[in-house]
Amino acid sequence: MADYRVPREDMQFVLQDVFKVDQDWARFEPLAELDFDTAAAIIDEGAKLAETLIAPNCRAADEEGVKFVDGQVTTPKGYKEQFQQLAEGGWVGVTANPEWGGMGLPKSISAQYEEMLCAADISFSLYSGLTAGAIMTLDLHATQELKETYLERMISGEWTGTMCLTEPHCGTDLGIMRTKAVPQDDGSFAISGTKIFITGGEHDLVDNIVHLVLAKLPDAPAGSKGISLFVVPKFLVNEDGTLGERNPVFCGSIEHKMGIHASATCVMNFDGAKGWMVGEPNRGLAAMFTMMNYERLGVGIQGLGAAARSYVNAVEYANDRIQGRGAKATQDQSKDADPLIVHGDIRRMLLTMKAFVEGGRAFSTYVGQQLDIAKYAQDDAERTRADALVALLTPVAKAFLTDTGLEATILGQQVLGGHGFVREWGQEQLVRDCRIAQIYEGTNGIQALDLLGRKVAGSRGELLKPLAEDIGKFLAEGPIAGFEQEYQQLQQGLEMVERATKSVLTKVMQGDENVINGAAVEYLHLIGYVCFAYMWLRMAKTAEPLVAERPYLASKAKTAKFYMARLYPRVHGLLAAIEDGSDSLYLHETGEF
Amino acid sequence: MADYRVPREDMQFVLQDVFKVDQDWARFEPLAELDFDTAAAIIDEGAKLAETLIAPNCRAADEEGVKFVDGQVTTPKGYKEQFQQLAEGGWVGVTANPEWGGMGLPKSISAQYEEMLCAADISFSLYSGLTAGAIMTLDLHATQELKETYLERMISGEWTGTMCLTEPHCGTDLGIMRTKAVPQDDGSFAISGTKIFITGGEHDLVDNIVHLVLAKLPDAPAGSKGISLFVVPKFLVNEDGTLGERNPVFCGSIEHKMGIHASATCVMNFDGAKGWMVGEPNRGLAAMFTMMNYERLGVGIQGLGAAARSYVNAVEYANDRIQGRGAKATQDQSKDADPLIVHGDIRRMLLTMKAFVEGGRAFSTYVGQQLDIAKYAQDDAERTRADALVALLTPVAKAFLTDTGLEATILGQQVLGGHGFVREWGQEQLVRDCRIAQIYEGTNGIQALDLLGRKVAGSRGELLKPLAEDIGKFLAEGPIAGFEQEYQQLQQGLEMVERATKSVLTKVMQGDENVINGAAVEYLHLIGYVCFAYMWLRMAKTAEPLVAERPYLASKAKTAKFYMARLYPRVHGLLAAIEDGSDSLYLHETGEF
Repeated sequence: MADYRVPREDMQFVLQDVFKVDQDWARFEPLAELDFDTAAAIIDEGAKLAETLIAPNCRAADEEGVKFVDGQVTTPKGYKEQFQQLAEGGWVGVTANPEWGGMGLPKSISAQYEEMLCAADISFSLYSGLTAGAIMTLDLHATQELKETYLERMISGEWTGTMCLTEPHCGTDLGIMRTKAVPQDDGSFAISGTKIFITGGEHDLVDNIVHLVLAKLPDAPAGSKGISLFVVPKFLVNEDGTLGERNPVFCGSIEHKMGIHASATCVMNFDGAKGWMVGEPNRGLAAMFTMMNYERLGVGIQGLGAAARSYVNAVEYANDRIQGRGAKATQDQSKDADPLIVHGDIRRMLLTMKAFVEGGRAFSTYVGQQLDIAKYAQDDAERTRADALVALLTPVAKAFLTDTGLEATILGQQVLGGHGFVREWGQEQLVRDCRIAQIYEGTNGIQALDLLGRKVAGSRGELLKPLAEDIGKFLAEGPIAGFEQEYQQLQQGLEMVERATKSVLTKVMQGDENVINGAAVEYLHLIGYVCFAYMWLRMAKTAEPLVAERPYLASKAKTAKFYMARLYPRVHGLLAAIEDGSDSLYLHETGEF
Repeated sequence: MADYRVPREDMQFVLQDVFKVDQDWARFEPLAELDFDTAAAIIDEGAKLAETLIAPNCRAADEEGVKFVDGQVTTPKGYKEQFQQLAEGGWVGVTANPEWGGMGLPKSISAQYEEMLCAADISFSLYSGLTAGAIMTLDLHATQELKETYLERMISGEWTGTMCLTEPHCGTDLGIMRTKAVPQDDGSFAISGTKIFITGGEHDLVDNIVHLVLAKLPDAPAGSKGISLFVVPKFLVNEDGTLGERNPVFCGSIEHKMGIHASATCVMNFDGAKGWMVGEPNRGLAAMFTMMNYERLGVGIQGLGAAARSYVNAVEYANDRIQGRGAKATQDQSKDADPLIVHGDIRRMLLTMKAFVEGGRAFSTYVGQQLDIAKYAQDDAERTRADALVALLTPVAKAFLTDTGLEATILGQQVLGGHGFVREWGQEQLVRDCRIAQIYEGTNGIQALDLLGRKVAGSRGELLKPLAEDIGKFLAEGPIAGFEQEYQQLQQGLEMVERATKSVLTKVMQGDENVINGAAVEYLHLIGYVCFAYMWLRMAKTAEPLVAERPYLASKAKTAKFYMARLYPRVHGLLAAIEDGSDSLYLHETGEF
């Protein structure tokens, strides 16, 4: 496998030139001291960790995997040191509240860090990633006392966190969960039930694990409105902050999975474990989702990271491996054959990866920027607008970045031919590790439902407006030279989104109960391709005046051309499918499948 | 995992009703004694093996994998008995020449058998699959003496065979291979070199392994015109047919791979091993390809088989698992939730799988029928026409069945959510096992080059005619009721193929050396989607008058509707990409990737 190299230059381009995030920071009081040089230095620290410490161990960690013996989970060799260094660098709390020791960096920066970490090793990234999610939830919803007990230790990386949602009989449909929380005289709750698929539920990296658990109070209403959230530590914490008795929450087994072999996916049994409520009774799902929405961009970035790593490997292989002859002008007669990269189909695969990776990097930064505006802007209207964009684009980021990520990693494997199928080269691991990101944290189908149902139909299309405005404003500035046709394509894409939305909303009004569930995935993809087109044209435009002094940027217009010519036209098939709605999905009787 | 059930009813429908293969048999002298009842009985025997013996062991075999110790390869528990039963049933020689003990069945039948075997266990299928390929090569190209030495034992399954093509530095580009064959005084050759990725190169299922090896004579011309073919047994065979001394061909190691863990993928070192030439000097590649073209359909069927198995599992899960509520009319209030199958997006995934699986089954049978006509028809014109269809459709079958197969297995995993990612349910293994079929036996990119370059451009489009005729004739018969629009879509598809072909051929004439390599994959997919549309409309039409007595067939028109509405519209994006040709692929300098 090629050495992993963090694309510092591209990250800088996206942050500083395309989205000018430092201009936002200057306006936002909590970020006023951050400037781009500082940000670049921070990114570089993370990059060093990713490149020199984490990435080189990724394949060995996959081979070794996590081990489960007598209730204990052992992580692969090197993970403990890696985690310590990550913690010492402050990376567990990269976006966390400075009041409790967090770095308090904006999401636009942490998105870059997350990409590096996921490119280096998705399995490893999850231990700190879930912890960051738990930190955020506690910070937003827990009492001061609970915060004092847990936050500093989690932000420092001394303890890790989990999210316990799924049960054996329910994943997507949490309303039917069975885990119980019985109030105790001391104000705590006794939590009993079984949770599955708990990432980092048990491991040997740190001394204590803080579980955030969804459960039902005895008198809870049925369904998703009767779920409360609890914090349940592996070891109870004494008043003086030392670890006390072992709480009866035990790992019953770990899953054997297609990928992320070095991540402990645990069955967790709560046998009357002591827990404390976080937030309001029966409002637990909402509390958990505050954080999940924030974290969904992070899962999207897992797809991006895997794709970015696969791309580096594939480009190196395509340059090194000689095989077959290219067009006459490109032949090197001093060798038996020409490098793979001269062949059109190899270039098609590499450029598809490049378009998805760099487009995805820009897109995740765009969403990250909106998250920052929604969090930090003083102006209400500005915050509200960013909130709307975030609500719309979060499911797109989660699903589209992982769907394109899987396509990219599969292509990255294909470039290597048989060597891509062999473990030694690392490309197949990226496919296996990327695959889970389409499933967990809400399947991509669920993301699509969230987008089309809750967000678009739920707002009768209103929520699309800020995005359409952003793109419309960009288009109104007029095309750069040679991109007249591509600007028209993007304009047509906006019209297709409008047409698709109208088609679905009309059917909803006509009483079609199935159209949203039936058209959602293709609708999300349509929005995804249009967003990536916007990203690519915006990058091409931003790059144009800078190319002379930064030759690296010359590729932007070229990749934009490729994307618009080869990948973007998929929108036509998607629109046709959306307009079918659910019409062709319910012709079959159940027994006819 | 659900029990695997062979789709006997669908296989019968495709063979007997759609393609009426028994009417061909009656006309072809060597098949004159075969009737459909006999064929159904044969299929049923194979089905029992697949369902009760092979499929149940598939996951355990994957977990155990093949082991390599001291040059010996051990296959998983159960494989030896499975192979014996397969051999005893005559299945290794299912299509082989009856003169040497083969069953001599037509490819249309063996295509069904291969689908079952691959659905049951792709890894296991390879040991006999490669042997069948070697049998065919020897039967077509070897001397009578070599045939007498090897064929009966291989057809009976007493010995297995391999194909040794790839070397460490060359896979696709065999012209630069280094393995040497030095003529010996006794008429044999001393073969020296290293071959990699040799499926079944070493194992413990049988006593002898017969390698078919590509190598270069000392005075061979450079490139692919200087390659000869040799038969190199693991143990030399004495005059009386007993095994003699060990030939110096040894397994140096086995690969650790993403999937097909129970298939031994070997590095084979030939240290002056004794071999005998098969066919003419320097014509080895042609001899090997006679067989590879026949076998490529078989690799396509691996994709189909994996998809078919995944579909059975996904349907069972979608019926059993309750999660979320469907539209009001479908709700079962006696339960906490409704089965997954009521949800539109689940149905979209299942129907995509169904459309690819049943469409693929029809398509592979269509190609199999043409292979049979090309082999058995007495009439020259009929044979020539079938040959042309086979030449055109073989790369499509190999690549499109495996590309759609992978898409289907990924969807089959997604239907199960997190459970699809966990090994226990078997869905993830199907993804891993299916993935290799897009790579080996000529990558799907190479298949596309073969289709667009050698076949279509090489014949200036002439080779497309028999397919266009078949479809045109079908369309001319007029649509069945309610399918007017779908028939128009297929007509438009034919026109799109014409337009795509013209676009590419024009660029070739204008001197664009890269257009074929650049547009090939999308071109192959365009042809694939059009062929599947033809299959679906033909199935819908064939089923229509039969539905009353065979209710199973009611789903055909429904799935045809789904395919045309949701999947077929992908042709629009493909056409746009083809018309880009190589234009957007060569904008980047090599260093800009």
